Amino acid sequence: MTRMTVGILIFDAVEVLDFAGPFEVLSRARTVPGVASRLSDDAAPFDVFTVARTTAPVMAIGGLRVSPAHSFTSAPHIDLLIVPGGFGTRALLNDPVTLEWVRGRASEATITASVCTGALVLATLGLLANRRATTHYGAFDLLAAIDASIIVARDVRFVDDGVITSAGVSAGLDMALHIVDRQCGRAVADETAAYIEYRRN
Amino acid sequence: MTRMTVGILIFDAVEVLDFAGPFEVLSRARTVPGVASRLSDDAAPFDVFTVARTTAPVMAIGGLRVSPAHSFTSAPHIDLLIVPGGFGTRALLNDPVTLEWVRGRASEATITASVCTGALVLATLGLLANRRATTHYGAFDLLAAIDASIIVARDVRFVDDGVITSAGVSAGLDMALHIVDRQCGRAVADETAAYIEYRRN
Repeated sequence: MTRMTVGILIFDAVEVLDFAGPFEVLSRARTVPGVASRLSDDAAPFDVFTVARTTAPVMAIGGLRVSPAHSFTSAPHIDLLIVPGGFGTRALLNDPVTLEWVRGRASEATITASVCTGALVLATLGLLANRRATTHYGAFDLLAAIDASIIVARDVRFVDDGVITSAGVSAGLDMALHIVDRQCGRAVADETAAYIEYRRN
Repeated sequence: MTRMTVGILIFDAVEVLDFAGPFEVLSRARTVPGVASRLSDDAAPFDVFTVARTTAPVMAIGGLRVSPAHSFTSAPHIDLLIVPGGFGTRALLNDPVTLEWVRGRASEATITASVCTGALVLATLGLLANRRATTHYGAFDLLAAIDASIIVARDVRFVDDGVITSAGVSAGLDMALHIVDRQCGRAVADETAAYIEYRRN
């Protein structure tokens, strides 16, 4: 099986569930149902890893310390790029190194996606121009202020309009399951949701 | 405010969402509603940290590398002890150092809780004897085999019967919100769920 590579950006003050939710869903998806298929990666459709500016540990919100699997330069080709949110996104909006990296990787990716206020990063790069998109409810106005051409969707779990964006925090689980659905079909997405005992919204 | 200390055990092959879900909920709970109260810990009712046998990085399932905030010996008093699950729990059942640490900390804690197959660890220690308890659906029989006096609840998100146990993976979010509810009241739990855009089960 050819696995889709999934690079999840992490950074200081990233919201824990924003990256951990999609990490969980995409790393535990299996094209073969049941608990046993999770004991190996043989039936794993995604190869999921974290990426940060450097490989130095990242301090997520609440003090969870995560060591990135890759730096911007060491990361392999990324098919699915995920930009999570958290208060740390505000610093990213003024960080040319991160913005250029996201721009470059998004241009090469098959799918670019954000969770929560990760949408602010994509908006700053113009990647959401003239698209429907969503974010955490606390950032709807900021998203529109960054790019007035964005059609902000306010009452959805996620939007798939070329670029995929999700609502706040836990909505990243639904977005990730949507991606499983899109890539592997409904049965695989439903079984993955059942494995993690998640009731899709 | 006196914060309740929350120690979340992590170990190699811990399931990501098992620990990240309660970490997210309990570290982002605030007694003051709104986004702004999340910018500081002033209104935080819980002080949440990870604990492992040593402070060496832990490799969670899927390859997420997390550095524990504390080792077994450096961890402060724990008011709320949370034991997550994952395939790594099987090794813990034969690890006397971890079992004795959990036994000791559980005996001092106000609340002991498990997510998913973390219940197997509590069962091995006799902490679930004659109680109603739950776990991941793939481990119902194993839970009963460890201690036949456990009344295994098969169709619930969590059980609070002195010791709190949750169903698989994502059910840890509901269990953590139940703990917020129990400690801080329904309004705080509901507002925390709204902040992370989670629809409670």
